[in-house]
Amino acid sequence: MDGEVVDGRLVRTPNGSTLSLEEVDLLPPCAPTKLVCVGRNYADHAAELGNTVPEQPLLFLKPPSAVVATDEAIEYPAYSKLLNYEGELAVVIGSRCRNVPATRARKVIAGYTAMNDVTARDVQRGDDQWTRGKAFDASAPLGPWLATDIDAAVAVRTWVNDELRQDGTTRDLIFRIEHLVAYVSRVMTLEVGDVIATGTPAGVGELKVGDQVVVEVEGVGRLTNNVEAAPTDPRIDEPTETA
Amino acid sequence: MDGEVVDGRLVRTPNGSTLSLEEVDLLPPCAPTKLVCVGRNYADHAAELGNTVPEQPLLFLKPPSAVVATDEAIEYPAYSKLLNYEGELAVVIGSRCRNVPATRARKVIAGYTAMNDVTARDVQRGDDQWTRGKAFDASAPLGPWLATDIDAAVAVRTWVNDELRQDGTTRDLIFRIEHLVAYVSRVMTLEVGDVIATGTPAGVGELKVGDQVVVEVEGVGRLTNNVEAAPTDPRIDEPTETA
Repeated sequence: MDGEVVDGRLVRTPNGSTLSLEEVDLLPPCAPTKLVCVGRNYADHAAELGNTVPEQPLLFLKPPSAVVATDEAIEYPAYSKLLNYEGELAVVIGSRCRNVPATRARKVIAGYTAMNDVTARDVQRGDDQWTRGKAFDASAPLGPWLATDIDAAVAVRTWVNDELRQDGTTRDLIFRIEHLVAYVSRVMTLEVGDVIATGTPAGVGELKVGDQVVVEVEGVGRLTNNVEAAPTDPRIDEPTETA
Repeated sequence: MDGEVVDGRLVRTPNGSTLSLEEVDLLPPCAPTKLVCVGRNYADHAAELGNTVPEQPLLFLKPPSAVVATDEAIEYPAYSKLLNYEGELAVVIGSRCRNVPATRARKVIAGYTAMNDVTARDVQRGDDQWTRGKAFDASAPLGPWLATDIDAAVAVRTWVNDELRQDGTTRDLIFRIEHLVAYVSRVMTLEVGDVIATGTPAGVGELKVGDQVVVEVEGVGRLTNNVEAAPTDPRIDEPTETA
């Protein structure tokens, strides 16, 4: 069900009634067909991992199966021994689009939310491509909801167990939102609900099973997730007709 | 509309009537939420590009926006000057699944089709991640249809303008289908219609605007696509409610 969040405390439902946020389970704020993520888009973060700043946006993908909502679990993959948080501002697309000029980029944006680009750092470093390191189940917490507008520069902060770990601002983005929308949409058609994650500032670090991690984007809200061990049991649903 | 292809010539529709293949426009044989592709999975292809064979499957992603059907156009990106074909056997998932043991992998497969892993080789080589090089619009022709079963070893052949360029066999896969399904499903949940593309044999090469490229997987059929220049004009649809 859709709803409008009022003052970060109440949810107004489509029929006009209001519920307290404590009464509802929030879903992810959008249903992306793809998440296009940007690596090394803050100079201080590129430096902390020993990387240079790229000359063009460094793009990688997460699939829909990576998305979880606020209050859902981050799953620590069994094949990793070094899980990291990365708090980010995420842009949600509102119009199917392609080859969008930077000057019209704001027109295709439905809103803004927080994302945690959860990363198996050891696996990312070991693999040539980042699929196992960044595209696993529950590696893309998104939420808590969509803000339809934000200021030009907003704080991006991450806490682990109430300890502040990241304290950046989108003022420091190397490639800005309009540029990213233009760049990505020259590669691929963006669909309604698709996400462009704008990269993480300095301060990335480790998550353990049992940790609680909060990513706050100023003007949006707080995305909260606890870390659990990923299930390793086989799960095979009944076959379904492919369309 | 669904339909069953008979002898590679006729389409039997759900109401029992038959049409000749010439009378129909085929859609992609599935609607993947993600395409998980495997790089360097034939030793002869790894060698021809100067790469070593990976110790584990090298995974990368294509998004749903990359999919086109047989007879639809491959789009040559404006930012590339070296487009390549890569003919492959693609596995289509029929059951939502996770952590599938290799011994049960065949149970989650709906069928097999051909894929052309179209690649902007110059961009792939220049970028750290392969998103611009391999995830652009129309970079994943799939088809012509789904074969529900194939032999253990099938030929994978590619022609450009009727000239044979690739002539491999899945007998030479380094990581076999069962292993790939198990490996990928330990990273991410596979959804009905998702694709695992098993990699390309030796013989990859250049495509130009105006070329016709055919990928044939023995026991499936021939996937045919012509190469056109990608559109560069802005396209922005009316906004739609995200939900």
